[in-house]
Amino acid sequence: MSMKAVVFRGPFDVGIEQRPRSQLKDSTDAIVRVNIAGICGSELHMYRGHQQTGTGHIMGHEFVGIVEEIGSDVSSFQPGDEVVSIFSAVWGLTNRCINGTAFGTPLLDGGQAEYVRVPFADGTLQHAPTNLDRRLLIMMCDIFPTGYYGSQRAIEGLKTQYNSKLTSFTPKETHGIAQNGAEENEQNLSYFSNSAIGKIQESTIVVIGCGPVGICAIAAARWEGIKKVFAIDSVEDRLVEAASFGAIPILLGKDDPKEHIMKVTNNRGADAVVEVVGNKAALRSAFELLRPCGILSSVGFHQDELPFTALEFYQANITVNFGRVPVRTIFDDALRCLTANQDKMQNYISHELPLNEAARGYRIFEQTKARKVILKI
Amino acid sequence: MSMKAVVFRGPFDVGIEQRPRSQLKDSTDAIVRVNIAGICGSELHMYRGHQQTGTGHIMGHEFVGIVEEIGSDVSSFQPGDEVVSIFSAVWGLTNRCINGTAFGTPLLDGGQAEYVRVPFADGTLQHAPTNLDRRLLIMMCDIFPTGYYGSQRAIEGLKTQYNSKLTSFTPKETHGIAQNGAEENEQNLSYFSNSAIGKIQESTIVVIGCGPVGICAIAAARWEGIKKVFAIDSVEDRLVEAASFGAIPILLGKDDPKEHIMKVTNNRGADAVVEVVGNKAALRSAFELLRPCGILSSVGFHQDELPFTALEFYQANITVNFGRVPVRTIFDDALRCLTANQDKMQNYISHELPLNEAARGYRIFEQTKARKVILKI
Repeated sequence: MSMKAVVFRGPFDVGIEQRPRSQLKDSTDAIVRVNIAGICGSELHMYRGHQQTGTGHIMGHEFVGIVEEIGSDVSSFQPGDEVVSIFSAVWGLTNRCINGTAFGTPLLDGGQAEYVRVPFADGTLQHAPTNLDRRLLIMMCDIFPTGYYGSQRAIEGLKTQYNSKLTSFTPKETHGIAQNGAEENEQNLSYFSNSAIGKIQESTIVVIGCGPVGICAIAAARWEGIKKVFAIDSVEDRLVEAASFGAIPILLGKDDPKEHIMKVTNNRGADAVVEVVGNKAALRSAFELLRPCGILSSVGFHQDELPFTALEFYQANITVNFGRVPVRTIFDDALRCLTANQDKMQNYISHELPLNEAARGYRIFEQTKARKVILKI
Repeated sequence: MSMKAVVFRGPFDVGIEQRPRSQLKDSTDAIVRVNIAGICGSELHMYRGHQQTGTGHIMGHEFVGIVEEIGSDVSSFQPGDEVVSIFSAVWGLTNRCINGTAFGTPLLDGGQAEYVRVPFADGTLQHAPTNLDRRLLIMMCDIFPTGYYGSQRAIEGLKTQYNSKLTSFTPKETHGIAQNGAEENEQNLSYFSNSAIGKIQESTIVVIGCGPVGICAIAAARWEGIKKVFAIDSVEDRLVEAASFGAIPILLGKDDPKEHIMKVTNNRGADAVVEVVGNKAALRSAFELLRPCGILSSVGFHQDELPFTALEFYQANITVNFGRVPVRTIFDDALRCLTANQDKMQNYISHELPLNEAARGYRIFEQTKARKVILKI
């Protein structure tokens, strides 16, 4: 038996091929009949040839579908169950499990196909929730948890800082020394003098990159009650979407992000920046927008050198978090946030294409002519 | 009236000169008659010519003494008060106050002299505690709070992580998927299954660099109950001192730190690394010793490029903290820790020299023939 699948042939070249239908290999495997597969921004690193990889594998690490078959050691799922997969097959911590393998790579065929083999099915699959729009469910494979993680790490960093004895800034400390620069000092004080929750919600958070992951990060930050979320992108349509979630848009090429952020923060800089783009320019911009002792949360997939020196890090006293989301760990919380936002997310999926048109889907997504492309099978 | 002072003339060249006695300039100034001044490791960057700076200024940012005169707006101190100064003159957050100026630089003469002018005296000076050995008090200017800050940031990072919904690793998550790699999985589980405090104290923390700041970092980590603190240095005498605080020594050139740490952590890596050296090799080593999602706390003063790529940061999922200690903020807590450790610290100050022998003090400290050098005036 064979099946149709989207195969990576090399940079800017994906296409439909016939492949043998996916089969169980290990007793912990499941076979899933795919209903919807997504094209994810992180696949563009491979598509554009920036990420060195082999060819000939089936693409896709976002898919939802129906369990078709299970191995003898799978206990949490039955054939017929509707499921959503996380982007890599794991039995441990999703992001850094030493046995984790991402779908859609030479090591493991992906889900842009009629069927897909899912290793460690009990850990990799999640039951589909009943109260979420099926088209949005695909976002739970990767991008929504990734954006959620980016914002949550930033917020967690700020919480830690506001509660820390290592960074607290109490009125006592400035007693009697207000002679020089008293006005600015008072600004600092009023900033730090609210309650912890209040401080978080009054914080200024910037999201750099408003593609799918960035929109998810914005939604998550706003859901946590952050009032001032700034959104930076060079694509106007993406900023319209960002604004619909309550973010304040900054259009690259028209506005100067640094000037803008410094102006609205009395020259202090943003409390936290969430960087989701995955290139040097975005990372450098994130650094420059931060206040001293700010939080840099980067979930972009970076291939390059770091655009900072050690002296700059030292002088900025910042906290830096990089890395991939542990989807399974945060799945339930992220799902709650997405479900609460599903009405606003309706415009989010701009293109629904049949599997046969996958090549076009990659092309328009790569050219930023689409917000999010899903393939229906 | 004139005074004797230690002047920076250029790399490897400091010496005693006669200078006009320090005078009040601003109403928030105080003049301090110096009793003891320290030579600090961070001055070696200037002494060795690695840090570009001017010449002709008075060295020293560690000093304790007696208030001689106060400006009209100084309210917390009186002539005759015994005081200890923090390393930079500030009215805000010690480490990144926009008006902060470090002593012992071309911008502000330092305390290796008979007298020193202290700007923003109410913020910069602290009253000398009554229950601490006077020779050890000099450590409160910079190095003890710096080491304390390095360890505390690492511990705070671990606490945040162990309590975080973003990284928690619960038994539920591995239910039913123990087929492959079950043994290793159980190790992970047992590691993460203790209570939060227990987890912190069972964590593996590595301190790279066992000069004065490193010893302070070790003392602070041990004081928090961390059982496994590893100490890395290339100088055997420093490791003897580290071991006296309960650290487990690793001698560079004899032991392989990575092999050692991987062995004692079942190939997982250290939970946190505190880097106090301030060069690329130490920073690279810190990165390589960390487990995935570990905490890198760097208080070393770095002049170079960062020895990591963005891809390495992404793949490691680590949290990175750099920067200078906010001494004033943490002064009371750090002082409590130092006071509790003062008996063990007795061997810490290896050389007490008269001011006239400052040049020799710099020489032997630079050659790592001294643990800590203080100048008595």
